[in-house]
Amino acid sequence: MIVLGIDPGYALMGWGVVEAKGGAFRLVGYGCLETFAHTPMQHRLRSLYEGVRDLMTIYQPDDVAFEELFFAHNTTTALMVGAARGAAIIAATEGTENLYEYTPGQIKQAITGSGRADKKQVQQMVKLLLRMDEIPKPDDAADAIACALTHCQAGVAKEEFRMK
Amino acid sequence: MIVLGIDPGYALMGWGVVEAKGGAFRLVGYGCLETFAHTPMQHRLRSLYEGVRDLMTIYQPDDVAFEELFFAHNTTTALMVGAARGAAIIAATEGTENLYEYTPGQIKQAITGSGRADKKQVQQMVKLLLRMDEIPKPDDAADAIACALTHCQAGVAKEEFRMK
Repeated sequence: MIVLGIDPGYALMGWGVVEAKGGAFRLVGYGCLETFAHTPMQHRLRSLYEGVRDLMTIYQPDDVAFEELFFAHNTTTALMVGAARGAAIIAATEGTENLYEYTPGQIKQAITGSGRADKKQVQQMVKLLLRMDEIPKPDDAADAIACALTHCQAGVAKEEFRMK
Repeated sequence: MIVLGIDPGYALMGWGVVEAKGGAFRLVGYGCLETFAHTPMQHRLRSLYEGVRDLMTIYQPDDVAFEELFFAHNTTTALMVGAARGAAIIAATEGTENLYEYTPGQIKQAITGSGRADKKQVQQMVKLLLRMDEIPKPDDAADAIACALTHCQAGVAKEEFRMK
């Protein structure tokens, strides 16, 4: 099973692709889609949409796991981040119907065994589980990888996390 | 010039198409894209995206005018409405680069001459300007028509309202 993890954001959208095979996990690829201030919104959303669409084409994931957005500092920010997440969701549905969502707490719990682990602990475990030489950078990409890994570990329980 | 007006919403997205020709305005079509509660978000966003994409194909508008979202009751609502607006923007960019945005106050001002006119006054003026027999229903469609009409009336000043 190939899983694309996405940490949705407007300026930076992290992504990570993990393959689960016979109980083992392999990191296939990761990175960030970046959009720039002073660029019209229509171009920023379009570039996020096309970026995720390209990832769907390249990696052909079976499932896509989104990190759930919990809060935004204010409604204006929420409108923009919501739009970015919408762009990613629409692009993802062009490749699969299997969209899932995990909260930061669920990701921490799945990766480290504690819902209150800090970011560094999560990143160390991701590095260990995927036998990486270094902690993946930037943070947005590391978060997306952790989200994909969480989904891989969810196994048969994953249906509970299907996007509603 | 053909203008598609859009009043972006998650459950109801109003739309209206107005043609401006030699100083006269003609209503070409209007309606609402509707999505339903208890439907997975990925399907709701996809249906809004495909709905707007279909409108772009059918009416081939030169310009698309969005009613600007000002506030949302809370950040959760803002995330959803933002996603719906994002879906509409991405679909619109498949037909044209010319996206514009008007605040409710700018629409009231353009249609009635007063930025503080109430909804009823705006709807009455829309009916008059487009020589309709009745006020268009539902409100979301009427708002989208008013937005398209505002853009038609903006003329050379419209560049100021280009989406940023």
